[in-house]
This record gives sequence, C-alpha cells and structure tokens, in this order.
Amino acid sequence: MSLGPPTKPPIPEPVTSELMEKHRLAVIGSLAGKIAHHMNNPLTLIRANVSELTRAMGETSDVERLREEQAEVLEEIQAGVQDLLRYVEAVGTFAQTDGEFETLDLNDLVDTALAVAFSKVRYAVDISVERPNGTVPIWGCAQQLLELIVSVLLHIDARPSEFGSCTINIHRIDSGALLRIADRRPSGPIAHVPDGSHHDQFDPELGLVLAHHVALAHDTRLRVTELDDGVVVYEVALHGR
Amino acid sequence: MSLGPPTKPPIPEPVTSELMEKHRLAVIGSLAGKIAHHMNNPLTLIRANVSELTRAMGETSDVERLREEQAEVLEEIQAGVQDLLRYVEAVGTFAQTDGEFETLDLNDLVDTALAVAFSKVRYAVDISVERPNGTVPIWGCAQQLLELIVSVLLHIDARPSEFGSCTINIHRIDSGALLRIADRRPSGPIAHVPDGSHHDQFDPELGLVLAHHVALAHDTRLRVTELDDGVVVYEVALHGR
Repeated sequence: MSLGPPTKPPIPEPVTSELMEKHRLAVIGSLAGKIAHHMNNPLTLIRANVSELTRAMGETSDVERLREEQAEVLEEIQAGVQDLLRYVEAVGTFAQTDGEFETLDLNDLVDTALAVAFSKVRYAVDISVERPNGTVPIWGCAQQLLELIVSVLLHIDARPSEFGSCTINIHRIDSGALLRIADRRPSGPIAHVPDGSHHDQFDPELGLVLAHHVALAHDTRLRVTELDDGVVVYEVALHGR
Repeated sequence: MSLGPPTKPPIPEPVTSELMEKHRLAVIGSLAGKIAHHMNNPLTLIRANVSELTRAMGETSDVERLREEQAEVLEEIQAGVQDLLRYVEAVGTFAQTDGEFETLDLNDLVDTALAVAFSKVRYAVDISVERPNGTVPIWGCAQQLLELIVSVLLHIDARPSEFGSCTINIHRIDSGALLRIADRRPSGPIAHVPDGSHHDQFDPELGLVLAHHVALAHDTRLRVTELDDGVVVYEVALHGR
C-alpha cells in the first residue's frame, strides 16, 4: 500500500505544553539580544532630549520662549517613554507562562506580538497593519495566540527572500475575527543573507507546527496558502465568545 | 568494590556548548518576565517626572524659580534613563551567543550579572558588593563567566531559606582576581515560599554544574563550601592575562 504525500503539516501527537514552553523560551532567548538592542535607541534619544532641555533651561531667561521651544522636546520625551512602557509590557506578557481562555482584543494581541518579534523581523520585511477601529473581541488564550502570531512572523522572517512588504489584516466577521498575514515579498533570487541566524536555537518550522496546534486548541485552523503570484498567506478565523 | 560518596559535583562529559546554550536560553526565558516587570517602575517614574516638569513649565513665569525647583527632577529623569540604558546593555550582553577569550573587567562582569539576575534574586537575598576601585582585569570569556556568576546567584536564589544577606567580594590577587560570593542567610526554618518558581524551566543544579565547567574552561575551580556557621561560600580565582 502506498500513501500519497502528506497534505497537512505534521502535528506531533501529543504536542505537550512542555514542547510549547521550550519553544517559547527559545524564541525569547533568541530575541532577547535584539529586543535589548532595539530599546537602546529610544533611551539614547530620551537622554539627548533631556540634556537639551536642561541646557535650554539653564540658558534662557524668557519662560515664554522656553515653553515654546521645548514643547516639542517634552512631547518627544513623553512619547518615547510611553513607547518603551508599551514595549516592556508586551515582552512581559509574552514571557508569562500561564494563560486561561478569556475574551481578548485581537488588535491588542497583534500589537503585542509585533512588539516582541519586530526587533528581528524588521530586517526581513516591512510590516503594515490594516485593522478596524476599536476592539476586536475574540475568545482564546493570550499566551497561546501570541505564540501563534509570533511563530508566523518568525516563519516569514526565516524564509529566504528579498526585502519586501508584509500585510497584517484584521477583520471582524460574524463568528469572531479573521487574522490574515500576507507575505508579499517577491520570490525572486535569494538575497537574504543569513546574518548569524544559524545561531538561533529555535526552529521556525517547529514554530509553525505549534501554531497549527494552537489553532486546533482554539477550535479552528491555520491555513497557509501560496497564491499564484507567489504571495504566501497565513489565515486563521478566531471565534468570539 | 564499594565507592565512597562523590565529593565533587558530577560534571557531564562532554559538557557540550549546546547544553550551555540551552541553559542560557532557559535562564533568559525564565527571567524575561521579571526583567520586563523590573523596567516598568523606572519608566513609570520618568513619565511622572516629565509630566511634573511640563506642568511646572506651563505654570511658572519665573525662570529662576523653575530652574531651581526642577533641577532635581531633571537629574532624576536623567539618572533613571542612564540606569535603564545600563540595564538594557547588560541584558543584551548576557543574551549574546558568541564570545572569545579577552581581557575583561571583573567589576564590570559582576555588575552585568547582577543586572540580569537581580530582578529575581532580590526577593531572596539582600546583595551587597565589596570591591576595589578601578578595573580588575582578568582573562576570560565574558559570556561564559556571566553564565557562571548568574548561575551561582540563581543557585542561591533557589535555596530554601529565610530572607537574608549575600555578600559579593572582589579582590585583586597576584595572579588575577578572586571572586567570593557568600550566602549569609540563616539556615533556620524554611520560610521561602515557592512562588511559582516550579514554573521555571531552568534547573539551578544544572546551572551549578555548568558553572563548574566554565571554571575548568578558565583553568581554575569553583569551590563551594559550607562554613560551620551555615554560611555558604562560592569562590573562584580567575587568572589575569
């Protein structure tokens, strides 16, 4: 008896939570350096802005002018701090081990996953997000769904390709929400230089297998399709409560 | 033939760099959440200080007074940003995979290791560092030695004990430097409540084994001794160039 080629990705049975936990640690470990590096720039900018403010306060005798000239600097400092707070919170959420099923906002989840993966993925793709305003409520486990989205992003990152664009679409649908991530990069000659990514201790293919498993645990499927024009689409419909 | 009890810690042969890498990832993964949490406070303080500064600039018409009243706030902001930059740099250094033997400053190494481990260890011990001024040059691999120091700190953290003090001593000696970490906590009734540390995916005992291995790779030994008064001392002499 001969079996045809498998049409579905191999899902190890049972996928233990231990395996997912190990993969999550490997992802955090391999991203930690890049995340730290990525926080360096805004902090350096804040430091420069605060120095500039201190200098200006010391040199001016006209409060009116000081206020006017430094309004932008103050706003920039505050915006930088706010960004860092959001970033730190996202990493903290991703690093959490436990997670229960609850009502989540898909917009929030995508932002958190992007914060975690962006420091690495930005060198491979230019990511834009198209989304509805307000919250997009779904029912699921935040930690697992973050692992799904981050795994898809890192799978895209690992694909050898020229630099190009990637679109994340969030749609409200009757039963919940649709998440669609389209890797639109030209599948031309390989221009992606492996920049030490062989050091990474996590396995992008295992990540995708686990992403499939997360989808199943959410009573849905992650569909990965390659369109005729070479665009690769990762699509998952998530249920509402 | 009967063998006596082993007097030396078991060192798996060969300790692969893969095992060390896995342990490092597990350490980063299990600390990531605490590190993120630990960065939240200074960022929140900076945000509050910048708000206060903005308010004061908007309300005052007297530059002299503004300068005087806000000098401390500005210094606090700048000190907070500087601390965060040092912290982010330390995590980035620890997260690096590669490392060659070079001349290092033991004072620097201890600070980096403390930055990485402190967010977790602070709940178990009060750490003080006694050290000579200036640099304390030694010859070694920064990544490996960081793993040694962090592993010792996490080993102390994992020991069930009451809260107490831990002293890190750095001494210059003829052949290089001596690092001595003394866990001075009373070995009385166990008051350490396991606060979810069973979730940790890294193994403190494996960490100590790897620390021994790092010492051997640096042509020295890590000695762990329990003194009569219950103080546990971890000691390693590191060579100069």
